[in-house]
Amino acid sequence: MNEGETRKPIIVLVRPQLGENIGKAARAMLNFGLTEMRLVEPRDGWPNPSAGPAASGADIVLNRAQVYASTADAVADCAHVYATTVRKRGVTKPVVTPAEASSEIAAAQGRSAILFGPERSGLETEDVALARAILTVPINPEFGSLNLAQAVILCAYECSKHEGLVQPTQEDLLPPAPQEELDGLIAHLESMLEPKGYFRPEARAEATRRTLRGVLTKPAWNHLEVRTLRGVLSSLQREPRL
Amino acid sequence: MNEGETRKPIIVLVRPQLGENIGKAARAMLNFGLTEMRLVEPRDGWPNPSAGPAASGADIVLNRAQVYASTADAVADCAHVYATTVRKRGVTKPVVTPAEASSEIAAAQGRSAILFGPERSGLETEDVALARAILTVPINPEFGSLNLAQAVILCAYECSKHEGLVQPTQEDLLPPAPQEELDGLIAHLESMLEPKGYFRPEARAEATRRTLRGVLTKPAWNHLEVRTLRGVLSSLQREPRL
Repeated sequence: MNEGETRKPIIVLVRPQLGENIGKAARAMLNFGLTEMRLVEPRDGWPNPSAGPAASGADIVLNRAQVYASTADAVADCAHVYATTVRKRGVTKPVVTPAEASSEIAAAQGRSAILFGPERSGLETEDVALARAILTVPINPEFGSLNLAQAVILCAYECSKHEGLVQPTQEDLLPPAPQEELDGLIAHLESMLEPKGYFRPEARAEATRRTLRGVLTKPAWNHLEVRTLRGVLSSLQREPRL
Repeated sequence: MNEGETRKPIIVLVRPQLGENIGKAARAMLNFGLTEMRLVEPRDGWPNPSAGPAASGADIVLNRAQVYASTADAVADCAHVYATTVRKRGVTKPVVTPAEASSEIAAAQGRSAILFGPERSGLETEDVALARAILTVPINPEFGSLNLAQAVILCAYECSKHEGLVQPTQEDLLPPAPQEELDGLIAHLESMLEPKGYFRPEARAEATRRTLRGVLTKPAWNHLEVRTLRGVLSSLQREPRL
């Protein structure tokens, strides 16, 4: 994969329901030069016989599509994750338009992924928690009826505007660490907090974990910064040194 | 119709074939606040029973749609006519992108119309001849497979950028915490790291402090986030709770 390809976003369909919609999303992607699709727990399994006919020839996208068991797995190697939502949620993350997101993605170091939720219900809160930013298409407030393929095509279209453009270089800036390094940091901290009762009462544990993840996801720390923080945690676990 | 409405383009479907596609186009339009559709010689007549279900509730667009006997009639009252084509033709007219056309339309005096051809064949040369400019969506040269509703939605989406549609706001995002709160967090962490020997050897202490401050300054955490992290540190200082 050449450098141009790795600057294009990965389209992640989270728990898509109909194979037909997966095919339509593939067609929407390829119209604007996006080829990398990932599927998280597609409802009807994969491959899906309904996807091919709906893709209208975008088979290359479907054939290359990778299936993942969880959203976290699907974005583990991504430095920039966007969660598409129709409405605002109770999460305090930056909210960007497709145009803004595509500008960021074109200039970004490291891979980017855009998450799209199931047709009917959209992304779950824990999917959104993995993202650095919310991507929302500004839509008619009195008639919001964007289907999956339409949401995908608008994002793909905006990203295509940045193709062939000379991007400003950020060579002196390291990209955000891959998601799995961040997950390692979070798991390390949680393992230290668990025995201290930080996640009690149990009923609040999930919300507390989400809050903590939100605080630690926001910085977009790079590899070196994550390593520094892992060192901090290891140091705190040591016995005092006199 | 108020002034804002008359600045929005009229979507003209020239000899559309399937009622379903007319309905999908209506849905695409209304998502981005366009309500005026005109139909030139719809193949299966009008109204068409397949249009309503495909419009997913955008009935207002279908109910208001006007039928014309010719493309010239349909745009007789329009000052600015754009003809969408996939490929450039042997016509010498300006070629614009959806983004450029929507900027022109938003700034234009008089009504604007965007012509879309039949699903299979596209606009005829005589339709294109009515237009001041050709509107072409820059598409993957190796896979051009944009259907009618997709072409409509991209144009409607671009036009909506010039409308007062509700943009995603960031009002729910708090500003970064005051420096003294961040300093309090850093001092708290340093006081925990000090007895663990984190800042040794002494010669490296200052650089290590600077690195740590850099990592913790980058996130621009807000007041609540800093408070969460102070809680994390306090929890780590506690004795384990069984």
